[in-house]
Amino acid sequence: MNKADTILTGGIVVTMNRQYDIFMDGAVAILGENIIAVGASADIKARFEAETVIDCTGQIIMPGLVNAHTHVPMTLLRGLADDLRLDVWLLGYMMPTEREFVTPEFCRLGTLLGCAEMIRGGVTAFADMYYFESDIAQATAEAGLRGVLGETVMKYPAPDAPSYDDSLAYTRQFIEKWRGHTLITPAVAPHAPYSNTDDTLRRCVELALEYDVPLLTHLAETKFEVDDSLNEHGMSVITRMNQVGLFGAKVLAAHCVHIDQNEMHILHDHEATVAHCPTSNLKLASGIAPITQMLKSELTVGIGTDGTASNNDLDMIEEMRLAAILAKTDAADPTALPARQALLMATRQGAEALFLGDITGSLEAGKRADLITLDDHPLHNSPQFHRDQNLIYSRIVYASKSTDVRHVWCNGRQLMRDRELLTVDEAAVLRDAADIARRIDKFLARREQDILSKLLAIGGLQQAESFEVQLKAQLPDETQIEKLLTHPDVEVLKSIHYRQYDTYFLFGDANERVRYREDDRIGADGEVESVRSRLTYTTPTKEGEFHSTILLSRSRFIADANQSLRFYREYFRPDQERELHKDRQRWHLLYQGVLFYVNVDRVFKPELGGVFVEIKSRTWSKSDAENKADRIKAMLGILGLDPAALVSTDYLEMQTAP
Amino acid sequence: MNKADTILTGGIVVTMNRQYDIFMDGAVAILGENIIAVGASADIKARFEAETVIDCTGQIIMPGLVNAHTHVPMTLLRGLADDLRLDVWLLGYMMPTEREFVTPEFCRLGTLLGCAEMIRGGVTAFADMYYFESDIAQATAEAGLRGVLGETVMKYPAPDAPSYDDSLAYTRQFIEKWRGHTLITPAVAPHAPYSNTDDTLRRCVELALEYDVPLLTHLAETKFEVDDSLNEHGMSVITRMNQVGLFGAKVLAAHCVHIDQNEMHILHDHEATVAHCPTSNLKLASGIAPITQMLKSELTVGIGTDGTASNNDLDMIEEMRLAAILAKTDAADPTALPARQALLMATRQGAEALFLGDITGSLEAGKRADLITLDDHPLHNSPQFHRDQNLIYSRIVYASKSTDVRHVWCNGRQLMRDRELLTVDEAAVLRDAADIARRIDKFLARREQDILSKLLAIGGLQQAESFEVQLKAQLPDETQIEKLLTHPDVEVLKSIHYRQYDTYFLFGDANERVRYREDDRIGADGEVESVRSRLTYTTPTKEGEFHSTILLSRSRFIADANQSLRFYREYFRPDQERELHKDRQRWHLLYQGVLFYVNVDRVFKPELGGVFVEIKSRTWSKSDAENKADRIKAMLGILGLDPAALVSTDYLEMQTAP
Repeated sequence: MNKADTILTGGIVVTMNRQYDIFMDGAVAILGENIIAVGASADIKARFEAETVIDCTGQIIMPGLVNAHTHVPMTLLRGLADDLRLDVWLLGYMMPTEREFVTPEFCRLGTLLGCAEMIRGGVTAFADMYYFESDIAQATAEAGLRGVLGETVMKYPAPDAPSYDDSLAYTRQFIEKWRGHTLITPAVAPHAPYSNTDDTLRRCVELALEYDVPLLTHLAETKFEVDDSLNEHGMSVITRMNQVGLFGAKVLAAHCVHIDQNEMHILHDHEATVAHCPTSNLKLASGIAPITQMLKSELTVGIGTDGTASNNDLDMIEEMRLAAILAKTDAADPTALPARQALLMATRQGAEALFLGDITGSLEAGKRADLITLDDHPLHNSPQFHRDQNLIYSRIVYASKSTDVRHVWCNGRQLMRDRELLTVDEAAVLRDAADIARRIDKFLARREQDILSKLLAIGGLQQAESFEVQLKAQLPDETQIEKLLTHPDVEVLKSIHYRQYDTYFLFGDANERVRYREDDRIGADGEVESVRSRLTYTTPTKEGEFHSTILLSRSRFIADANQSLRFYREYFRPDQERELHKDRQRWHLLYQGVLFYVNVDRVFKPELGGVFVEIKSRTWSKSDAENKADRIKAMLGILGLDPAALVSTDYLEMQTAP
Repeated sequence: MNKADTILTGGIVVTMNRQYDIFMDGAVAILGENIIAVGASADIKARFEAETVIDCTGQIIMPGLVNAHTHVPMTLLRGLADDLRLDVWLLGYMMPTEREFVTPEFCRLGTLLGCAEMIRGGVTAFADMYYFESDIAQATAEAGLRGVLGETVMKYPAPDAPSYDDSLAYTRQFIEKWRGHTLITPAVAPHAPYSNTDDTLRRCVELALEYDVPLLTHLAETKFEVDDSLNEHGMSVITRMNQVGLFGAKVLAAHCVHIDQNEMHILHDHEATVAHCPTSNLKLASGIAPITQMLKSELTVGIGTDGTASNNDLDMIEEMRLAAILAKTDAADPTALPARQALLMATRQGAEALFLGDITGSLEAGKRADLITLDDHPLHNSPQFHRDQNLIYSRIVYASKSTDVRHVWCNGRQLMRDRELLTVDEAAVLRDAADIARRIDKFLARREQDILSKLLAIGGLQQAESFEVQLKAQLPDETQIEKLLTHPDVEVLKSIHYRQYDTYFLFGDANERVRYREDDRIGADGEVESVRSRLTYTTPTKEGEFHSTILLSRSRFIADANQSLRFYREYFRPDQERELHKDRQRWHLLYQGVLFYVNVDRVFKPELGGVFVEIKSRTWSKSDAENKADRIKAMLGILGLDPAALVSTDYLEMQTAP
């Protein structure tokens, strides 16, 4: 008799080996980290003895599932914000929260929470991309799962690195520390082509080659990304990455939603693998990856849940089920991606996608003991048909639930016994996670209440407080302006012609306003020369008043508006919106040596009629403001303006007048 | 203090009423069949007392889910056959099995099994379409669920009715028996436009109007159905059904995958409702229903699982999650069908789709007590964010599981307590279901082993045993044939020109063959005049031999091939396939007063070269066969054929020769 540590007997053993062997009354023998035998129960019991023999009657014994793409610490952000457009979700919620909260401790806790969920759902290996991967590695190893863990490299500052040089240095250290670990495969993870430069990508490839570690990245996730690449580089994402030399490394590419046959060939030729994430792709409206064509092109494709922030769980059984049914409608063929193939992608082929095919993904003697059992006939999976052994794949993929998983082993160590976690202190993790969630809630709630904090949270905004003295008057026509411009006390410095399209976001009674302004600069020929968009935060409160009609106003924040109006609309969710479109002729002039701005406006939306003149000047002190107010009053005299023409309301308020 | 029977307190009450009220520490009071109060726990406890007070801390209290479309007895056929094309699945597996097994007892058992699963998954009302609905109603009422149960009407014989007249009579009886029942709404269910005639549809409408009951049907499920309708009737399915007058009844239409804006208007104008079944539509590759546009058109849309045979479960939480994420990619908008709206479709709007909106679908005083609780923070739904109450919809839809459901009430009666079923004997149902599954397995296994049974199972086949004496010879050219045709002993009756495209399905060593033949009849002008396809089952075994080269063969079965070659290929799954294409000139002639068929064939696939002549005659006895063999030998003499020209193998075997 040969010695084993543990023998599982009496279950239906679904090996997922190359012959797809199934043993209806089957057994698996484990010794140390490894599977040493798989076969019929009678045969295994005749050949092996073990101290621990586990009766798996009524259970399926199968390889642990492989989650080919996730961001495990983000499990702490599950359900933080949903049903939003990608940019609002990412720039408005995820990144501000990450900037504020992502620390080594956050990553450690999030990893333990995510690993606990994955163990419960029968996952024994996963590929990760996040920050502080060394802490993630530590937590993953403690939880006992197998991880291919990619440290993120971006051209932007990251929570764990102020620059990409620091990211690369961190990644090198991380790889040095973890390479050779039984459970952990360190990897380098340039976030995506658009968030890197060619140089950072090449340095990632060099690092991956130097240590022979995988390179994890996101490729061709959205149509926008591909269109952008076509516009900017004249080629699609994969083609360009090939030119950059990315596929010199062992690449595991997440998503690949928008790729064509030629790009599949490139991936195949370079033995790059793909992580298919159907839930995330559907939920973020990224599209449906051409999975049938990928498989026909003999690409190695695994299945990933992506992070819970876009899923919202780490349930691989749901994921493979969705992969299978979605492929059918996508290919207009109900025989596409049958159950066995979906399970293959979630096990052996998934392991191959993670470059772990030689040690895990199927039940075979010599491979690591990464395996799970699941209840074979719960109510929701009854009755059962047995005339064809292959029907078991359909049962697993189409009707089993992650809650059917009963026992889990990884690398020979049992991680769950009868649905009790053995390596993660679930109660403590849940308690700590609830604490963090409360703090994030507070952070976001404060921000939601305060438009200004919300503005600051998305970044790019300069806290540029400025005061202006200003006057506005209605003119019958433009002729009076000439009087001012040609006056001996006036020196015209500059004249500019704009068309300005303003959208004001108004919020309840809070008296706060965000103005999104598109400034179209108009050339001498009447054509648009350039366009600039800016965001301004104001309150309509006047700070002071001079000569009854000259106001002192405060504009507190201004920023380039890098995102679309639509983005800001969905992000700020204003209670009201108002549009103001005008043609503006602007002069920079010195009056008695002091700089003023004179605007002559025609407001065409709403149709206010006539011509308005505004005279403004920046100011920085009460006495300076008084001084400038006096000069404005003097200019009024030059213009020969009737006091009745003076306007003390701004355009927006005129708009609401009856 | 007011009296209640049961008060649930301390849970998060998600009412799904018109104001979408949520009570974070909420309570629901139940008296008899009804909800009598919903509100804050403190308020309800101050106003009501009850013998049973259930602490629901850590649970969400919400309306029971509404499954808007299923075929509940088919739960017994879960996983019977998957990953097949619709016709193979339906005609090859479902219908033969249904013809053999569907009885009142089958329906009763399947209903109990399905209801047990639905109760476990938090469903309290469902719409059904099947046979023996009276037995389904009985079992549903015993299980304690609310059902809108539609008795199927088709132009074909059904398991419970040899003709549609019988179906309609059954339906009338069924309605008479069950109308007015607290839980059961009987309904009439013409299966689909294509499986009915205009007359049967009109009679269904009349019946529905006479008793004021809903009419349930499948509409525009596949593109094929719509194309067919356009070809046959010159209009799309919904338009035609409008013309037939279908929407005079209260119609709940399942699927509506392929409908346009105009058809949505028709449905809306007639207050017809829709059951959206995303899993079934994806799995059968039917497509993605334009759900965003339907909701914009203000259609009342519920969500349905469809039967487990095309799902493979009755999990409404999965279903609403899929509805929500699929809509986003379909609309290319991640804000489409947000979580709250998905939950609405699975609760209040689902109830409205079933024409039960006044009594169920939301937690409101006066409505029936149809409600469930689910655990609010299992590991897979942690942590949680509370800054915005609406985030709870995201938690329910995107991350909860049907196994989170803890308690279930329907019509004031508790059906599940702490995940223990109170109305269905789960063990007995599972045991009986396993029994039936074993019998179905045996039936199908026998059929799978035996090609002939498989042929018989799909119907249309005539067991037409026939014997033929036949001879085949190779001719250098056709000139010799003239000798025979002009011989004084010969009278030519008829001459026909065919091109024949044969596909042979071969099976292992079993010596069984199925031949699919397309016969193109060629006119004098060389054009195809008509096409006929036939299926023949043969074994290559010869029954006898005369004069060494004249064979007696047996052809046992023949049938019109109504399905496509592709269908038969996927249905029979042959081990090998061979093609044989030939041009055939055929004469019916009398030789010495006896009928013979003479074929002159040119085989062009494979390219056999030359011309072959076959002389054949039907026979019915050994002496008749001998007699005819003698005459064939005499005709050989007329043809002046060299014995070397005689061929004893059939074309298929020539093909395999080197």
